[in-house]
Formats: sequence, C-alpha cells, structure tokens
Amino acid sequence: MIRTQLLDQHGDIQHGQQDLIAQLTDKHKIWIDIELNNNNRDMVQSLLTERGCHPLAIEDALRARHPPKIEFFDEHIFILYRGVLAINADLDITHLQLAFFVSGNCVISVRHGHSKGIDKVWGTKQRYLSESPLHVALKVMHASAGVYLEQILEFESNLSDMEDEFLQRGNDQMMAELVSYRSRLVKLRRVFNYHTGISDVLQSEYALESTYISPQHHHDIIDLKDRFDRLYTLVQMHYEICGDLLDGYLSISSHQLNNTMRVLTVITAIFVPLSFLAGLYGMNFEVIPELKWKYGYFILLGVMAIIAISLLTFFKKRRWM
Amino acid sequence: MIRTQLLDQHGDIQHGQQDLIAQLTDKHKIWIDIELNNNNRDMVQSLLTERGCHPLAIEDALRARHPPKIEFFDEHIFILYRGVLAINADLDITHLQLAFFVSGNCVISVRHGHSKGIDKVWGTKQRYLSESPLHVALKVMHASAGVYLEQILEFESNLSDMEDEFLQRGNDQMMAELVSYRSRLVKLRRVFNYHTGISDVLQSEYALESTYISPQHHHDIIDLKDRFDRLYTLVQMHYEICGDLLDGYLSISSHQLNNTMRVLTVITAIFVPLSFLAGLYGMNFEVIPELKWKYGYFILLGVMAIIAISLLTFFKKRRWM
Amino acid sequence: MIRTQLLDQHGDIQHGQQDLIAQLTDKHKIWIDIELNNNNRDMVQSLLTERGCHPLAIEDALRARHPPKIEFFDEHIFILYRGVLAINADLDITHLQLAFFVSGNCVISVRHGHSKGIDKVWGTKQRYLSESPLHVALKVMHASAGVYLEQILEFESNLSDMEDEFLQRGNDQMMAELVSYRSRLVKLRRVFNYHTGISDVLQSEYALESTYISPQHHHDIIDLKDRFDRLYTLVQMHYEICGDLLDGYLSISSHQLNNTMRVLTVITAIFVPLSFLAGLYGMNFEVIPELKWKYGYFILLGVMAIIAISLLTFFKKRRWM
Amino acid sequence: MIRTQLLDQHGDIQHGQQDLIAQLTDKHKIWIDIELNNNNRDMVQSLLTERGCHPLAIEDALRARHPPKIEFFDEHIFILYRGVLAINADLDITHLQLAFFVSGNCVISVRHGHSKGIDKVWGTKQRYLSESPLHVALKVMHASAGVYLEQILEFESNLSDMEDEFLQRGNDQMMAELVSYRSRLVKLRRVFNYHTGISDVLQSEYALESTYISPQHHHDIIDLKDRFDRLYTLVQMHYEICGDLLDGYLSISSHQLNNTMRVLTVITAIFVPLSFLAGLYGMNFEVIPELKWKYGYFILLGVMAIIAISLLTFFKKRRWM
Amino acid sequence: MIRTQLLDQHGDIQHGQQDLIAQLTDKHKIWIDIELNNNNRDMVQSLLTERGCHPLAIEDALRARHPPKIEFFDEHIFILYRGVLAINADLDITHLQLAFFVSGNCVISVRHGHSKGIDKVWGTKQRYLSESPLHVALKVMHASAGVYLEQILEFESNLSDMEDEFLQRGNDQMMAELVSYRSRLVKLRRVFNYHTGISDVLQSEYALESTYISPQHHHDIIDLKDRFDRLYTLVQMHYEICGDLLDGYLSISSHQLNNTMRVLTVITAIFVPLSFLAGLYGMNFEVIPELKWKYGYFILLGVMAIIAISLLTFFKKRRWM
Ligand SMILES: [Mg+2]
Ligand SMILES: [Mg+2]
Ligand SMILES: [Mg+2]
Ligand SMILES: [Mg+2]
Ligand SMILES: [Mg+2]
Ligand SMILES: [Mg+2]
Ligand SMILES: [Mg+2]
Ligand SMILES: [Mg+2]
Ligand SMILES: [Mg+2]
Ligand SMILES: [Mg+2]
Ligand SMILES: [Mg+2]
Ligand SMILES: [Mg+2]
Ligand SMILES: [Mg+2]
Ligand SMILES: [Mg+2]
Ligand SMILES: [Mg+2]
Ligand SMILES: [Mg+2]
Ligand SMILES: [Mg+2]
Ligand SMILES: [Mg+2]
Ligand SMILES: [Mg+2]
Ligand SMILES: [Mg+2]
Ligand SMILES: [Mg+2]
Ligand SMILES: [Mg+2]
Ligand SMILES: [Mg+2]
Ligand SMILES: [Mg+2]
Ligand SMILES: [Mg+2]
Ligand SMILES: [Mg+2]
Ligand SMILES: [Mg+2]
Ligand SMILES: [Mg+2]
Ligand SMILES: [Mg+2]
Ligand SMILES: [Mg+2]
Ligand SMILES: [Mg+2]
Repeated sequence: MIRTQLLDQHGDIQHGQQDLIAQLTDKHKIWIDIELNNNNRDMVQSLLTERGCHPLAIEDALRARHPPKIEFFDEHIFILYRGVLAINADLDITHLQLAFFVSGNCVISVRHGHSKGIDKVWGTKQRYLSESPLHVALKVMHASAGVYLEQILEFESNLSDMEDEFLQRGNDQMMAELVSYRSRLVKLRRVFNYHTGISDVLQSEYALESTYISPQHHHDIIDLKDRFDRLYTLVQMHYEICGDLLDGYLSISSHQLNNTMRVLTVITAIFVPLSFLAGLYGMNFEVIPELKWKYGYFILLGVMAIIAISLLTFFKKRRWM
Repeated sequence: MIRTQLLDQHGDIQHGQQDLIAQLTDKHKIWIDIELNNNNRDMVQSLLTERGCHPLAIEDALRARHPPKIEFFDEHIFILYRGVLAINADLDITHLQLAFFVSGNCVISVRHGHSKGIDKVWGTKQRYLSESPLHVALKVMHASAGVYLEQILEFESNLSDMEDEFLQRGNDQMMAELVSYRSRLVKLRRVFNYHTGISDVLQSEYALESTYISPQHHHDIIDLKDRFDRLYTLVQMHYEICGDLLDGYLSISSHQLNNTMRVLTVITAIFVPLSFLAGLYGMNFEVIPELKWKYGYFILLGVMAIIAISLLTFFKKRRWM
Repeated sequence: MIRTQLLDQHGDIQHGQQDLIAQLTDKHKIWIDIELNNNNRDMVQSLLTERGCHPLAIEDALRARHPPKIEFFDEHIFILYRGVLAINADLDITHLQLAFFVSGNCVISVRHGHSKGIDKVWGTKQRYLSESPLHVALKVMHASAGVYLEQILEFESNLSDMEDEFLQRGNDQMMAELVSYRSRLVKLRRVFNYHTGISDVLQSEYALESTYISPQHHHDIIDLKDRFDRLYTLVQMHYEICGDLLDGYLSISSHQLNNTMRVLTVITAIFVPLSFLAGLYGMNFEVIPELKWKYGYFILLGVMAIIAISLLTFFKKRRWM
Repeated sequence: MIRTQLLDQHGDIQHGQQDLIAQLTDKHKIWIDIELNNNNRDMVQSLLTERGCHPLAIEDALRARHPPKIEFFDEHIFILYRGVLAINADLDITHLQLAFFVSGNCVISVRHGHSKGIDKVWGTKQRYLSESPLHVALKVMHASAGVYLEQILEFESNLSDMEDEFLQRGNDQMMAELVSYRSRLVKLRRVFNYHTGISDVLQSEYALESTYISPQHHHDIIDLKDRFDRLYTLVQMHYEICGDLLDGYLSISSHQLNNTMRVLTVITAIFVPLSFLAGLYGMNFEVIPELKWKYGYFILLGVMAIIAISLLTFFKKRRWM
Repeated sequence: MIRTQLLDQHGDIQHGQQDLIAQLTDKHKIWIDIELNNNNRDMVQSLLTERGCHPLAIEDALRARHPPKIEFFDEHIFILYRGVLAINADLDITHLQLAFFVSGNCVISVRHGHSKGIDKVWGTKQRYLSESPLHVALKVMHASAGVYLEQILEFESNLSDMEDEFLQRGNDQMMAELVSYRSRLVKLRRVFNYHTGISDVLQSEYALESTYISPQHHHDIIDLKDRFDRLYTLVQMHYEICGDLLDGYLSISSHQLNNTMRVLTVITAIFVPLSFLAGLYGMNFEVIPELKWKYGYFILLGVMAIIAISLLTFFKKRRWM
C-alpha cells in the first residue's frame, strides 16, 4: 500500500497514491508512506532505487528485523526505527520495523505493518512536512516513543503496587511474572539503547554536516532525545528494581525457611526422645523391672516433663523460639 | 499563584503580583515565581509565550512529570529540576517538578506545588537576584539539594544502626525495609544522575557560549555540582550497601540453616533407629524368642547405647555437632 | 592448499593456483586464498614474506589461536578474524582463525581450515574483487558473521521457548544447559567484542589515512559494523537473560522449598504429639490409671482431636496452609 | 590552635604562632597550620577571609564533612582531603577533614583534629616548603595516604588468612565480619574515588594553567596519583574478593545443605516404613492372623531387611549416599 | 648481582660486570641487568643515581611491591612491570617486581629475583639491543607475558574439563577451588589492568613526544599491547565463567534440594498418619471397641491403604513425585 502527501509552494496539500510522485518538483515537498506486504516488495524495491536510495539501505529497510540505526548517504539520511505494533502494560510487545529515507524535499516511510506513530502525524497534515521532511520523521518517532512511554508508565504503577504485596506474600506466579518482566525489559533496553544512539548521532556536530539537517532542527532533536533517554533510563531502572525485588525476596524467603526449619527441629527434638521412651516401655520383654514399680508410670511422666522443659529452655536460649 | 520581585538599578526591591512585570525595563531585574494549579495553566502558558519562552520548553515545564534537563535557547536557558515536596529519613519522597526560564534580566520559576528551596531563596530578598537571574536558579537548586542531603545523612545514620542489628538478628520486617530502601534509592539515583547531568552541562566550556552564563558564575556552579555529585555518590553507595547487606544476610542465614538442619538430622539419625528397635520388641507376635531372654531388655538397652554412642561419635567427627 | 583469482583491467577473471601470482601487474587485482595444513607452513611463510608481509603479522597469521585484531602496515592492512568452522543452535562452536593481508591490488586470505564465508564470496567471482581487495575481506567477514547470526537467531527462538517452560517446570538438565549457554555466550561475547573493535577501527577517521581505505568503502564498513554490533548486543542480551532466568529460578525454587517445608512441618507438628500420646498409652506399666477408665479411650480421642484442631488453626493463622 | 613555619630567602626557617604571619613578604614562604576547635571557628574564618580565601571555599573547609575536592581560585588552589584520625587493620576508620589553601608563597592547612600526615611533613622542616607551598600539600596527602596503605596491606594479609579458613570452616562471626568489611570498603572506595579525582585534576593539562602549578610539580603529582590509584584499586579488589567469598560460601553451604538433607531423607525413608510395620504388629486387635504364625516374626524381619536393602540400593544408585 | 652487555658501533657484543659501564660512549649501547639482594641495595641506589635516574623512580624500583606503571622523565623512561617468579596452572602465582630505566643508549633492568623473561631475551644477545634499548624492555615484557599466557591457556583447558563435571557432580572441593580461582583471577586482573595501562601509554600519541620512543617501535608496541589485552580479557572472561558456574551450581543445587525435600515430605506425609493409627490401636486401654471387631484389623488395613493411595494421588497431582 502506498499513499502520498504532496505540498506545493503555497502550502496547499494534495493526497493521493503513487501517481503524485510524478508531480514532484523542487518547489514541492512530498511524504511517501509505504506499507510492505507479501506482494509489493519488488515494486517497492524498484521505487526506492528509482528515487536514488542506496542499495545497502534498501536491503536494511526491507528486512523484517534489523537493529535501529541511522546512516548518512549523499542523497538522503536513512533512519531505521523499531516502533510498536502492539503493546500492553505487561510490556508484552510486538515490534514494527519502520524505515525513513529523508532528503531535501522528500521523506519516504517504509513499514512492515500498521503504525500508530505514522497515523498520528499523517493526521496533522501539512504541519510538519511544511517545516521539513526531517520534521516528519522526528515527529513520527516522537509519537511512537510516546506509545512506549504510556505503557511503561502504566507498567511502573502496576509494579509499584506489586512491590508491597510481593514482599508480604510473594507467590510463584508473581515471581514468574517478575522474571518475565526482566526478560522483556532487557529486550526493550537493547532497542532503546539503539534509539538513544540514533538521537545522539542526530544531535552531534557531525550531523550538521549533512545537507538535510540544520540548526532549525536542534530543539526538536533534543525533544526526541529527551524522550529516548527517558525510555532508556526508565526501562533500566525497572529492570534493576525487578532484579532487586527477586534478590530481596530470596533473602526474605531464606530467612523464613530458617524459621520454619527451627519450628520443625524444635518439635522433633522434643517429641522424638519422649516417643522413644514411651516405645521403650511399650516393649513386651518378660523382664522389664521398671514396669513393675508402683509409681513407674508417674516417675516416667516426671522424667519426660523434665526432658521437655530442659529442651524448651535450651531452644529458648538459642533464640530458636 | 504568581508573585514577583522587581529589583531596580539602585538595588531597591519591590514585591508584587503579575502587575510588576509591566514595569520591567533593561535597568531592572525580575524574578517571577509561578505556582501552577488547576485553574491557571492556560494563563501561565500565555504569560510564558509572551515572555518569549520556546513552545517545547513551555510544554515540558507544564508537564507534571518529566526528567530533569537543561536546554539553551536563544532567549533563555531552560532548566527542569526535580525538587522535593516531602521527604523523610526512610527516603519516602514526593517529588516536585520545578522549571526555570533564565534570561539576562529575568528568572521565571514554575512549580507544581510548594517548594522549600524557593522559599529559602525568596526570603533572602535581593541578595542573589542582584548578582544575576541565574544565581537565583542556582541557589534554589542548591537549597533544595540541601533538603535531600539532610534526609540522606539521617538515613545514613539509621542504616548504620540497622547494619549491626541486622546481621545479628535479622527479621522479615528489616529485610522488607532494606528491599524497599533499595527501590527508593534506585529511583533517587536516577533523579540525581539527571541532576549531575545538569551541573555537568552548566560547568562545561559549551555553557559559556550562552549569553546568560559568564565566568562569574563559575564557583557557584562548582558549588552546586559538588552537592549534586555528593548526593549521587551517597545514594549509589547506600544502594550498594543495602544490596550487600541483603546478600550477606543470605549467606549468613544459609549457614545457619545448615546448622539447624544438622541438629535436626543428628536427632533424627539417633532416635529413629532406636525407636524402631523399641517398636520391634513392642510387637505382639506369639513367637519372639528375644522377649523370653532373662537379660533381653538389658542387652537391648546396651545395644541401643552402643548405637547412640557410635552415631554421636560419627557426627562429631564430621563436625556436625 | 593455495588457489588464486586474477582479475585483469578488462574485468576478465582467471582461476588458478600459485602460478598466477607471477602474472600480477599494476593493472591486475589478485585474491590469493591459502588453507594452512601441516605440510605447507614453511612454504606459506616464505610466500608471505616475499609478498612484503610484516614478520609480526605473519607470526600472528600462522598461529592457531590469537585474538582478532587489525593493524596497519605500510605495505598492507592486516586483519585477523575469528570465523566459524562449525556451529549449532546450542552455540557449540568450533572457531576458525582467518587472516587477511590487504593491499592496493592484492588480498591474501590465510585460514586454518574450511571457511563458509570464503566459499560464499569466492563463488561470486569478480564482483567484489573488481571493486577493491578490501571489499573481498569485508564481504567474507560479513558472510561469516551471517553464519553466526543465523545460529544465534535460532538459539534466540529456542531460548524463548525454554523460558516459559523453565519457570513452570525447571529441571536439572535445563539448568545445566542454561549454565553452559552462559559460558558459551561469554566466550562469544569476547570474540565479538574484538570484532566490533575491528570495525570501529575501520570506521574511524584514522583508518582513512591508510592508502588502502577510501571513502568508497564507507557504507560497506558501516554494513559490517552493524552486523558485528548486532552480534555483540544479541549475545550480551542473551547472556543476561540466561543469568536472569537462573537467578529468577533460584528465587522461585527457594519459595517453593519454603512451601514444601511448611507442609512437612505442619504434618510433623500435628502427628508427632498425637503419636507420642498413643505411645504413652501403649506402655506396659502395671499401673497406668487412665487405662482402667471406662471412657479413657474416648476421652483421649477427644483430647487428640482438640490438639489437632488447635494446631491446624494455629498454622492457618500463620498462613502456613 | 595555630602554628606557623616562616622560611626566608636564605633558607632559614622560623617557627611560631599567628604573629609570624605579619612578617610575611614576597621573599618569604609560609605554612600556616590550623587545628579547628569549638572556640576558634570565628577567628579562623576571619583569618582566612583576610588572607583572601574565597567564601565558598572557607565554608567547605569549616564543615566537618564534605566530599574531597579541588578547586582553582584566582588567589589560591583549594584542596579538601579526607585524612585519617584513627584506623585499624579491620578498616575501622575515623576520618579527618583536611583543607589546604595553596598560593604562591603560602600554604594554609585547616584540620578538624590531629593529623599524622601533617606531623610527618611538619617534622621535615623546610625541605618541602622551600620547593613550593604546593609541595607541602602534596607531601602531606602522600604521607596520609601512606597511613591508609599500611593498614590496607595489613588487612590484605589478614583477609588472605581468612580466605582458606573461611571456605573450610566458615562460621557466623566470620561471615558477619566479611559483610562489615564490605560495607567499610565501599565507603573507603568512595573516598578514594574522590581522591583519585583530585590527583587526576592536578595532573591534567588544565591544572598547568593555574599560577601555582608548574611542570616542576609533575613527578610529585604522579607520585601522589600512583598512591591514590593504588589505594582505589586495592580497595575495589578487596571489596570484590569479600563479595566473591560470600557468594562462594553460599554455593558451598547450599551444596552441604543438600548433602545434609539427603542423609536425613535416607534415614527417614528407611526407618519410617520399618517402624510403621513394627507399629502395625504392635496393635492389640484380637484377630491379627500373622501374629499366630510360627515364623511370623522371622518372616517380618526378612521383609524388613528386603525393604531396607532395596531402599539403600535405590539411594546408592541416585548417588544420595 | 650486576651483569652487563655492551654493544659497539660494529655490532660486536661484550659481556661483563659493572666494570663495562665505564666504557660506555655515545657509540655504544648497554644493557645493565641488576638483581637486588639484601646486600646491594645501597650500591644499586647510588649506581642508579649516578646514571641520572630520578629519585622518585629509584624509590619505586627498589620497593618490593608497587603497582606497575610507566613514567616519562627527561633522562629516561621508567617502566615498572610485575613479572612472574613462579606460576602453575592453578594460577598460584609468586610475582616478581621488574623495573626498567630506558634511555637513548642504555637500558637498566632492576629485579627482585630470577626472571624468566630476562633470561629469554638475554640469551638472544645483541638482536634486540642493536635495535634500541626500548626494544629490550618490550621484548622482556613480551616474553614474561608469554609465561603468564601459557599457564592461563592451560588453566583454561582445565577449567573447561571441570565445567562439565562440576554441573554433574559438584563437590565441596571443586567449589572451594572455583572460589579460590576467582580470588586469584581478580588479583591477576588488577595486575593485567595496570599492564594494559602501560601499553596504552606506550601506544599513545603522547608517548611519541619522548626522545626514546619513535615510530620504529610502533609494531612491537602493538605486539606487546595485543598480548597484554589478551591476558586481561582472558582473565576477565575466566573470572566471569567461574562466577557463573558457582551461581549456576547454586540454582541447580537449590533445585535438587527442593526435590530431596519433596521426597522426604512425601514419605513423612504418608507414613506418619499410618504410624499414628497403628500406635492408636497399640494402646492398652481396657475399652477400645474396635479391637474386639472380628474384621477390625482388616478394616484398618483397608483404611490405611485408602489414606496412602489418596496421599500418593494428591502428591502426584502436585507433581511432587
Ligand atoms: Mg546493551
Ligand atoms: Mg546499555
Ligand atoms: Mg548505556
Ligand atoms: Mg542515563
Ligand atoms: Mg546511567
Ligand atoms: Mg541479581
Ligand atoms: Mg540511571
Ligand atoms: Mg547511574
Ligand atoms: Mg554515572
Ligand atoms: Mg562519582
Ligand atoms: Mg560512580
Ligand atoms: Mg545482589
Ligand atoms: Mg549478586
Ligand atoms: Mg571483554
Ligand atoms: Mg565487553
Ligand atoms: Mg560493553
Ligand atoms: Mg552496546
Ligand atoms: Mg547473577
Ligand atoms: Mg546473583
Ligand atoms: Mg562511587
Ligand atoms: Mg567508584
Ligand atoms: Mg568509578
Ligand atoms: Mg582503576
Ligand atoms: Mg581495577
Ligand atoms: Mg554478590
Ligand atoms: Mg549473588
Ligand atoms: Mg579492571
Ligand atoms: Mg577498571
Ligand atoms: Mg577489554
Ligand atoms: Mg572489559
Ligand atoms: Mg555472582
């Protein structure tokens, strides 16, 4: 699926399909938005080649999975961004590969599915395109990062609720959740690390040497960078908090185990000798003198009481009870 | 709520509301202090726009939550600082978003609630404003960081007391506390990391290119940077100490568990065979020859003593007792 | 084994053995591919010396094991790469030392066994050699890194399947597997760290000072660097995920142990006192008054019921059941 | 307490109190050593102010606790160093705040108690002061760092002895010691990290721009830096070793627990069924046919032997014994 | 012990003692090799002072223990290297302090014992000295690092064997070994970190400013740097692998403990209630109606079977068996 926005020198915007591309002159600006599907890969590849895109960049753009990156070519800036197709507050994410080819009067976005970020900016019409094609790419990424941010802040508030409950009454399911959060956060961290790499490059001195980046972009790049950095540090922080919770729970549950075992040991230590004594005098030997004693039973009860009390005192002293 | 301090060329200060802004000339300096509430957001937004603040900066300033940052605009320096609305020695913190727009003769502070840092500096009257608007922002942040510092030092002394007790007699509650301290410290660390980022930028060569920062600010910036660095390294150190305590407790309690279980095992190992023997001769078979022996009971007692002593010797040798 | 490709100024390619080297002029380009074996080490050493290779570089190339590196000599660039002789999705890898001597019209590849990367590029005939000898080396490394990548992505999908199962039903074998994955990943990480070092050097300003690297190589170097970086960050991520899984499993299994022990303790705590009572009245003393009571048995049953119910209530309250 | 050393152009030294300060001319060099106490704070503050010290530096110097730092002022270099009032080989340390104001012909040392470092250098008389006031500060820090070093090397040898014993026969007290060592080492590491920061600044190009630092100081600065670096890396290494020991002990004791529990389980598994059988035939039912059998008892003994042997074989196979 | 090699302008070499030093002219090169012992410290100190060595460098060279370092003086380069007196594949190392004073025509090596590195290079005669005195120092360090490398590669292969066995059948001794390997590796890592620091300085632009380092040394410095880097990354990798093995073993043994305890719990849970019932009917109350029942014994056996089967089913369902 290909759709286009063509902006003329009077600020008038025209919507269309692939046909608008032919009308593009130096006085126009155009945004070509391409959704890849199983049938149009070859067509898209030749379209991009015609528009002067570098073969190595096209190859990366058409791949379903490639780390985010930015690369400067003579004819365009190539940005590969990992957006979000679906996400929930459990950080269960389906990613969406999103490529931008940005030049002086043209921005081409190539995506492998439906993108919320593209939609938000496409709706604003000429607002960003009239500033520059790079603005379109920056704003799409800003909007997409906003989708991540929203869910991470919701995750944060869920995690905060879990924290208290977890330390009180951790259970297997919560622990398995924490473990899989960590695994998702570590994957997100890698993605966001690449994204901060992109904004670092955009903000660097070196980027200004590109024809398609000028000081007018400065504050919008900072704005994007702030968001990418925030995502990165939030995700890193939550990753550490999840790990610390699991570590802390380990200490707590190890302490509780110790208590449990002390209870078990105290019970065993007291009753096992007593039961042994009872068993002893339950034997059927013909000759067991004590059994004939008049007060044998009561003496034994006394002995048992003394044993029990001594052991209890002993364990009290060792602070096991 | 808006309040203002207007300083004229003779060093005389005038307090007022929004109306004083109109009197501002090149010969005056002004501090406009704005507390946001539910009703004045639009009014504040237009006030800031009128005073030449950049839309992206205004957006950040009005948000209730945004990572601390510093950004240089042509018309002003924008600083976003995360202050403290309430804090206690358990590091339970409610943060307060605090924004500064600093220009040649004007500093605007925008906050989302009551700020202790602002209060302290507001009370000193013209002292800092007469030096420069940037001094006001630096001193407010310095005072606010002092509030953090005070509580962290109190926390430090509490933690130090806990340390000894914890290793002696750790309990569930202390462990849960340590775990939640870690989580709070990791959040503080992130905030302080952003703050050290701000002071690093202010101290850099690059900052001197700004119209509103000059060598006269050098030592006051260093003073702020020292405090931010100190907060960061203190918080990082306490985070590590809490983690090390939990790790150490895990080792200790694992060792104690081992001891507990050895006691249990020794008791079990000694009495279970003896009890079995007693049970054996408590059976009611018609033919159990040993029961008829004259010294059967005494022989068995002897056998039991031998078994018990052998096992005790064995466990002594294995250092289980 | 030595084989060669000689490319003349008309783009015609000629395949042969060592003899083609003699035909090399300024107008030709040549790729000399050498597989080391037990017999040809001396011959290879003298061939390389003749072709002007530095003794320290030859020494490194002939070693069976040396960390990957890049070094610039006046006569050539020397690249030592650690390729892959065999690999599976369990990351069980046999490495292959691969050295390149790259100059203006000649690339020499020296390897200690059969290389898939070499094969792939050798098959493309003149395509890369016609661009430059360095292109050949870049493309061989790119192809070889592709072999790693394929297996790591397969490993990733296996690991992802394991993740869910592991937390549900971890067993000894899975854990031992995770531990050995970690050890393999840490070794791979070291190799890939060296490889990213190579591409970092190739991409640096400093590399352009070499006669044999020019701006035309820029995007192909970036392409290689992307792949090396991706391998490094993937391997690092999986290393962390494996570690986090093991850590998480430790917490989970510690929690489960606690539960197990509580079950054991509850059972013990209830039945041990009851059994003691039963044992007590199983004794054969001549005088045990309770045994004569008409309702003695039923009273005891009642007492036992009360004890059992009290203990059950107690453990319920402590949430042990 | 204030004491002074005044050195004239002929290399003659004069000792005295505060009065010697008045004699100071361009041709003299002076070292003013001040020990703060409860009474002289105001006097010291005005003295320092008179001598041209910057108010922010004076504030830092008079505080009882401030992170070590170095700052360049026009009139002097300000160094804040954390020395040692008392230390033992258990790394139980009482710190001592020590401030230096270094200018062309004057060094002022301000301390909050008795300093061994100061004493050592004070005793050498004119040797360092004749070189430059900065030399005095460098040598005091070098001597003070030597005090740290001595104790850390003693600690190292103690730790090394503990290592072997710990893994053999760890006990609660040793573990608690290791945990508190870690906490002390982490605090020392923070201090030493600040100190290396000071020597890094002194050694930097930037420091040479100060009037009071010249190339003649180079090797003495390196000498100080070596010692600070050594302290830092030693402390960091011991911190890691202590942590590794605790971690390792955890693994060992977890392994031992497993063994202990297997012993317990084997004993229980063997005797509990046998005891049950014995109990069964100890019941007083009127009709229990087996009890009448002539060889009942012997058959049961045989059955018990078979059960015991089978279980033992089973546990042998599972390597539990 | 002092021995010397004197090389004249014709490439002829002369061996001798201290006396050869007197013959040294601009046209000669000399290597003075000094082994310190208890008697010659003063003599060595004055010899070094005569040869123009800096007092701070001499102090460092004569110390038995000082971190490795490099420092540039006007008269010479001073390198302090930590070699190896004895080492085995368990990484049990006795270090050897080795100092070099390198100038234009003279290299002095000062050591605290017998050095294998020195021996290897001393035997090559004029080969390296004829190139430059710095070459001698570089080659001695290269040879000495080779001694480390050999043992670390042997250690690697031992560790690799241990890995498999450890996860199968870890025992106390293997764990204690791993723990002490870690402690030795962490100490080695610190040494190698200092060594890479030395080669980093030698390779830096800054080093070329020294009179005694020229571009001719470049590839030999790289060669040394490669080896130092390799040692560092190998040691770091093995340190991590040992730690990961211990961590992994902890998880595995915690899992096994869980299994052990479940076996114990199942056995206890089944037999304890049955034994209680048996005990109940072993009591000697005059009135226990069930004992009179004709089928009492068989009914009880049935009840016991039902209880046992129910519990077994229950535990099967909870996957405890
Ligand atoms: Mg990463
Ligand atoms: Mg990262
Ligand atoms: Mg990072
Ligand atoms: Mg950050
Ligand atoms: Mg960070
Ligand atoms: Mg962890
Ligand atoms: Mg952070
Ligand atoms: Mg950080
Ligand atoms: Mg940091
Ligand atoms: Mg720091
Ligand atoms: Mg730090
Ligand atoms: Mg931890
Ligand atoms: Mg840890
Ligand atoms: Mg590495
Ligand atoms: Mg690395
Ligand atoms: Mg890294
Ligand atoms: Mg990375
Ligand atoms: Mg771990
Ligand atoms: Mg861990
Ligand atoms: Mg620190
Ligand atoms: Mg540090
Ligand atoms: Mg650090
Ligand atoms: Mg260091
Ligand atoms: Mg270190
Ligand atoms: Mg640890
Ligand atoms: Mg750990
Ligand atoms: Mg290191
Ligand atoms: Mg380091
Ligand atoms: Mg490295
Ligand atoms: Mg490293
Ligand atoms: Mg660890």
